[in-house]
Amino acid sequence: MSNVRIGIAGYGNLGKGVELAIRQNPDMELVAVFSRRPPEQVKLLTEGVPVYSINDAEKYQNDIDVLIICGGSATDLPEQTPAFAKLFNVIDSFDTHARIPEHFANVDKVAKENNHLAMISLGWDPGLFSLNRVYAESILRDGKTYTFWGKGVSQGHSDAIRRIKGVKMGIQYTVPIASAIEAVRSGSQPDLSTREKHERVCYVVAEDGADLAQIENDIKTMKNYFDEYNTTVNFISEEQFRAEHNTLPHGGFVIRSGKTGADLQTNQTIEYSLTLGSNPEFTASVLIAYARALNRFKAEGKTGCMTALDVPPAYLSPLSPEELRAHCL
Amino acid sequence: MSNVRIGIAGYGNLGKGVELAIRQNPDMELVAVFSRRPPEQVKLLTEGVPVYSINDAEKYQNDIDVLIICGGSATDLPEQTPAFAKLFNVIDSFDTHARIPEHFANVDKVAKENNHLAMISLGWDPGLFSLNRVYAESILRDGKTYTFWGKGVSQGHSDAIRRIKGVKMGIQYTVPIASAIEAVRSGSQPDLSTREKHERVCYVVAEDGADLAQIENDIKTMKNYFDEYNTTVNFISEEQFRAEHNTLPHGGFVIRSGKTGADLQTNQTIEYSLTLGSNPEFTASVLIAYARALNRFKAEGKTGCMTALDVPPAYLSPLSPEELRAHCL
Repeated sequence: MSNVRIGIAGYGNLGKGVELAIRQNPDMELVAVFSRRPPEQVKLLTEGVPVYSINDAEKYQNDIDVLIICGGSATDLPEQTPAFAKLFNVIDSFDTHARIPEHFANVDKVAKENNHLAMISLGWDPGLFSLNRVYAESILRDGKTYTFWGKGVSQGHSDAIRRIKGVKMGIQYTVPIASAIEAVRSGSQPDLSTREKHERVCYVVAEDGADLAQIENDIKTMKNYFDEYNTTVNFISEEQFRAEHNTLPHGGFVIRSGKTGADLQTNQTIEYSLTLGSNPEFTASVLIAYARALNRFKAEGKTGCMTALDVPPAYLSPLSPEELRAHCL
Repeated sequence: MSNVRIGIAGYGNLGKGVELAIRQNPDMELVAVFSRRPPEQVKLLTEGVPVYSINDAEKYQNDIDVLIICGGSATDLPEQTPAFAKLFNVIDSFDTHARIPEHFANVDKVAKENNHLAMISLGWDPGLFSLNRVYAESILRDGKTYTFWGKGVSQGHSDAIRRIKGVKMGIQYTVPIASAIEAVRSGSQPDLSTREKHERVCYVVAEDGADLAQIENDIKTMKNYFDEYNTTVNFISEEQFRAEHNTLPHGGFVIRSGKTGADLQTNQTIEYSLTLGSNPEFTASVLIAYARALNRFKAEGKTGCMTALDVPPAYLSPLSPEELRAHCL
């Protein structure tokens, strides 16, 4: 089989991650990057790959097997994914959980009408966490599923901090509470409030002369973002901020605590966890594995929209079914 | 859709586990148990379900959608699964890793010739651990995968202890070494010897007047079973044995430690773990989820042999694709 020819739409943290992940997959080839910025202003990490205006994407339909759309979920992807599904087989990481059914329907319709295949909402949550919830709940029918996130940087909460008056730089870490995880692992199936599952830890560089007490209060009382959590605000120097808070780690846990047996007396626990040095690099690695799966399904004639729940594990692997049975089963 | 009509072939620990798991799945129905023992000697936990001689199974072909074969991997399943695949759609938990390709080929041929569908080597290893290895290795292309087993009872090692002269009762726990797991989680990708990954802990009730030092030496030096491990032998009373060692816990960890980024400088860790109060009850719960998937694939006309690597997560769930996208994704 020849290489899977990948295009990237949107060259931010995730787009760069996809570019890097392609280097780790010899059966993948980056053929073009599309950007909203003027192409001459976009400098790739890879030499020899052209950058085009996103408005010219239509011209390159025949050159690309899978277009990976690396926009944001709030406003970009609801527009971009259906639009690009007219032109390409597409993959996105749409992560607004409540709007997935609507996004799926929109993308499915366009993809089917244009004989394309789309895979949406890939990454780790939604994505790997979702499929682990489905596996675990399908196997342990009586039980409770818990998802914890972190320790990791929440971009949305970090942005919210930076909008507060007097804040020069800010970052927010979501931290799962260890005692809650231990309670879940024990099999006691506790009911946990929002406050009992996660805490929020902020690092802030204040502007000269800013009112620190006011900043701390503004953060801790912010509706929807911080008010339901125990939040710690640490003021640090700009130097320390740049040295210690320049990466985007993340991760989390999906734990299913279930019961089996004649009297449902037996505790059974399934746990899946991720410890990620870089959220965008990991998410990109997931997208590339699903690009391989998409290419295989397309070769079988499949069209429309799929999610991680519809893809057999073997389709993600560069190994053949025979090799997988011999070496991984 | 009407209930999936399940038959069980072989009524040991695993067969009983399947019987119990069916109770937790309202879309499943136990219609018959087949045994090598005289049927009148087999007492089920469920009232009203008939027990038949395994030799009469052919008569019930039209009554069963999926036959779950609960024999042992050493001698039963290599014979039984191909033989039953002539008559039924079948599921087994064949776990002799090195012989899976051969077993797959045998079952695939018979199933295809008889228009049946088979799923083999299901459970947690092979099974859930296998598919987690495939997901993790497909996503993190540069890295190392580690599998740890335990803490749990190894039936094979327990049997080996009980064959030693002077041993009245015995059980063996495989215990993963915590410092090895921590080293793997750190991202250092250590090379670990057999001895560095697991230790073996035995509890023995000796016969009156037995030579305890000799028993301990016989265990610790037993080739292929104990000689490559650090082994601890604890002599306990029969009373204590019956009170404290009457369940079959097990579990383990699959950890992929990988690297991403321009210089492969970023640590990324994927971890999957099971803590099982009862190994056979959990394995049975896995088999039942795959019986649901098998029934769906059969309705689509699929025949031949499949493994856990070929099944999309959504096929295991009693929920519809729409429900899964709305609630689990």
